[in-house]
Amino acid sequence: MNKRSSVSTVPGTSPLRVGFIGLSANKGWAIKSHYPALLQVSSQFQITAVLDVDLEASKATIEKLKLVRAKPFEDVKQFAQYENVDLIVVSINVPNFYKVVADLFKYSQGNASFRYLFAEWSIGRNLQEAQEVYRLASLRGIRTIVSLQGRKSPYVLRAKELVSQGCIGEINSIEIAAIGGFYGYERPYKSPDYLYDAESGVNLVSQAFGHTIDILQYITGSYFSEVNGMIFNNIPKQRLIDERNKSMDQEKPKSAPDHLLFQGTLETGNVPVSCSFKGGTPVKKFTKNLVIDIHGTKGDLKLEGDAGFAEMSNLVLYFCGQKPDEDHSTSSAETMEVYHLRNYNSIVGNILRIYEAIADHHFKANPSRKLPDDFSKQGFEFGGFPTFTDALVVHNLIDVVLRSHYQKATLPVPKPPIDDDGPDT
Amino acid sequence: MNKRSSVSTVPGTSPLRVGFIGLSANKGWAIKSHYPALLQVSSQFQITAVLDVDLEASKATIEKLKLVRAKPFEDVKQFAQYENVDLIVVSINVPNFYKVVADLFKYSQGNASFRYLFAEWSIGRNLQEAQEVYRLASLRGIRTIVSLQGRKSPYVLRAKELVSQGCIGEINSIEIAAIGGFYGYERPYKSPDYLYDAESGVNLVSQAFGHTIDILQYITGSYFSEVNGMIFNNIPKQRLIDERNKSMDQEKPKSAPDHLLFQGTLETGNVPVSCSFKGGTPVKKFTKNLVIDIHGTKGDLKLEGDAGFAEMSNLVLYFCGQKPDEDHSTSSAETMEVYHLRNYNSIVGNILRIYEAIADHHFKANPSRKLPDDFSKQGFEFGGFPTFTDALVVHNLIDVVLRSHYQKATLPVPKPPIDDDGPDT
Repeated sequence: MNKRSSVSTVPGTSPLRVGFIGLSANKGWAIKSHYPALLQVSSQFQITAVLDVDLEASKATIEKLKLVRAKPFEDVKQFAQYENVDLIVVSINVPNFYKVVADLFKYSQGNASFRYLFAEWSIGRNLQEAQEVYRLASLRGIRTIVSLQGRKSPYVLRAKELVSQGCIGEINSIEIAAIGGFYGYERPYKSPDYLYDAESGVNLVSQAFGHTIDILQYITGSYFSEVNGMIFNNIPKQRLIDERNKSMDQEKPKSAPDHLLFQGTLETGNVPVSCSFKGGTPVKKFTKNLVIDIHGTKGDLKLEGDAGFAEMSNLVLYFCGQKPDEDHSTSSAETMEVYHLRNYNSIVGNILRIYEAIADHHFKANPSRKLPDDFSKQGFEFGGFPTFTDALVVHNLIDVVLRSHYQKATLPVPKPPIDDDGPDT
Repeated sequence: MNKRSSVSTVPGTSPLRVGFIGLSANKGWAIKSHYPALLQVSSQFQITAVLDVDLEASKATIEKLKLVRAKPFEDVKQFAQYENVDLIVVSINVPNFYKVVADLFKYSQGNASFRYLFAEWSIGRNLQEAQEVYRLASLRGIRTIVSLQGRKSPYVLRAKELVSQGCIGEINSIEIAAIGGFYGYERPYKSPDYLYDAESGVNLVSQAFGHTIDILQYITGSYFSEVNGMIFNNIPKQRLIDERNKSMDQEKPKSAPDHLLFQGTLETGNVPVSCSFKGGTPVKKFTKNLVIDIHGTKGDLKLEGDAGFAEMSNLVLYFCGQKPDEDHSTSSAETMEVYHLRNYNSIVGNILRIYEAIADHHFKANPSRKLPDDFSKQGFEFGGFPTFTDALVVHNLIDVVLRSHYQKATLPVPKPPIDDDGPDT
């Protein structure tokens, strides 16, 4: 399951043509993750269009990155109608996402070549907005991909394998503690305003918790049945820091949360799960800044990372339990192993593996990796890629957590608001 | 604060005369903890009476332990009226406690020498019973002591010192994970029936959680303001094991909980606290079976133990933070230290330190350790000893946790039902 895509070259096919929104040569997430990932699968993906705020910016990106086949755009309408694109990647800030993607769907109605949309998590500021995006994608008829890329982390996949093969027996308890980024006392002065604002939906809960809990559900193969959340804004003002992380003696008020307490039960096995997500640059002295402890009747799994962002950190996986036999049944011998890829670049690698999964699906070179025709969500499958449906499931959980906090209640997790058909038709 | 009692001998005084209920030479908690502790302070405490189910049992204990000054009893009425007793220690099972202690108060009304009552936590099966015990103690007029002995653990006291001296700055988050004893898959076949029964009030919540959360409140100097609890009975049948911990191929149903998820906020600083208490013999492979992580703005404290019973385990305390200066202000230098007493017997030692505190109070040999006249609870004081009032505070918290679970609500912690005067008059 952890092997690289088998379709590094596919004879007789053209690469998928990629239109990119949010790629800049100098700054942002895409240049650090999507772009180097795409370079590694250049026989399968080729950037053919770049949309930025104005033509100059688009041209500058194309020039600096030597995207010789890419056409620059400044207008979303023309970009959406451009037929030399199969896959559009949208890597922009969540608060701006809805408007852009709505325009994209609106103007691309007649564009048959545009068949894939790859968007950054969280596709919306809240459940309602994500639902609307999902609805529009369904109406448009398009295959969606969302960057819940933690699912592609080799550590996560290995943990999932070990769990699914019964190597730790029945899971009976889980604890997670994470400390995440600039959601605490300090924030770089260049951070955009929306990161201070709870309403923007880009915060400790949506990001650190959202990604991590998606990973947990994916590893365990179970959604949550009941949850309680308690959300804190104990640090109402953040100190601003400069490029060298030096305090600037300035403060800025925030409404965004700096701590989430979450506890709940997994549907499968009624497993108690305890989580503490804390804002702040990593500082813990006696424990890693990300710890996911999964305990079972026959063993334990521990995932550790240096920062509370499991989806883009290099991790270490510790496993103790029953050794899987060749035939994937477990033997009674106990084994202990540590998995760590010292040079694994998780920022690029996890995104790369999503692109590989898209290629596997599109080129159908490997029959064993072929997705079913009605593939609308990854769910708990090893293969495939997370879709807007998977994103809605996480949004649905976050929404219950928020309601649990405001209502001061332990709440059941309702079924996510998903059409049976799904958006991927 | 960690020093041994200063009153190892007090010239011109007689030792406190101890009447013991629940001491047996062969089995039980008292012979492992109270008795060796009393031997270490024999110039201050002398067992003068033993009450057991019949005279033979009382005599046998006296004989085997060579308690030359002790008189055997089989009748609680006569025992309660015996004037050669200052302190009565009650170390019996919680379900039997109420009846015995009610009789004790009833029949000892005219017995002026009986002035101290030292009872095992939890003094009642639930808040209501503990309240009634507290009320009876108030009516009787007696100084109470309860074995919330974790407060006397040298690791706990050192942690409390470091916190109170600001060595880790302001506490901003706490995580606790513990795995405790025979509340999980297995239980010794000799265990009494009440341990399978949730109603007995002796279980994972009252014991592992009760002691640990009392310790946490004591270290931080703060009670909880709001809590959520989720209680699990995921293991409805326990496997019975023999004396050598071998499975006997027999099962016994239980209603007692095997997991508690608890999260809440400390009053002081609105600190988020996340706890996961799991039943089961210690098995975790990649983490200690007791971990208390206390994070502050200037450092961290970690308490670790091999089993989830902080009050009677030998621990290790890790501290990283600001070095306290001689004058107990903190300097800016960062320091890291590990506290561990390799040969510390915590089962005896923590109880011993309660007896030492009683002696300090009674003999008043050390003016700096003199308790105020209106001393009715230890609260967060370094000196003194935990009383029934402190026990009620913990019961009050446990009661909210139970209600939170049943009502599926995040609940405020009400003021504990304590008379202003307290029971210790």
